[in-house]
Amino acid sequence: MKLRIYVTLKPGVLDPQGKAIEHALTGLGFPGIEGARVGKLIELEVADSTDDAQIDAMCRQLLANTVIENYRVERA
Amino acid sequence: MKLRIYVTLKPGVLDPQGKAIEHALTGLGFPGIEGARVGKLIELEVADSTDDAQIDAMCRQLLANTVIENYRVERA
Repeated sequence: MKLRIYVTLKPGVLDPQGKAIEHALTGLGFPGIEGARVGKLIELEVADSTDDAQIDAMCRQLLANTVIENYRVERA
Repeated sequence: MKLRIYVTLKPGVLDPQGKAIEHALTGLGFPGIEGARVGKLIELEVADSTDDAQIDAMCRQLLANTVIENYRVERA
């Protein structure tokens, strides 16, 4: 089973990488850039028997820092 | 307009970060982990007038390294 896990910074958490992208795009001459945030996309290949509780545990224990990040799981 | 840009490593490109996740999950006792690849998710807020050619140029010039990475754009 293929999982796609999206890890994004919570609103309000500073995102210097996003700010750098925003400034770089404006500097390259692209108009109308209003904001950029950078997150992670983790594609996991797991056994079909893996249940939701296990996936949630993987995210909480390793993949996301739930103090500052949200995560969302999608089955591909 | 909100864009979600997914940047992933091309197949065959080594992904040490993915390998580290794979081994760490197995080490934490999760069974059946068969693979992990890590990519980037960039959420861009751009002016509604931004056209496809401009978005493509942003990805090619700054957001993705097209030698080793693929990108996919989604309008949210």
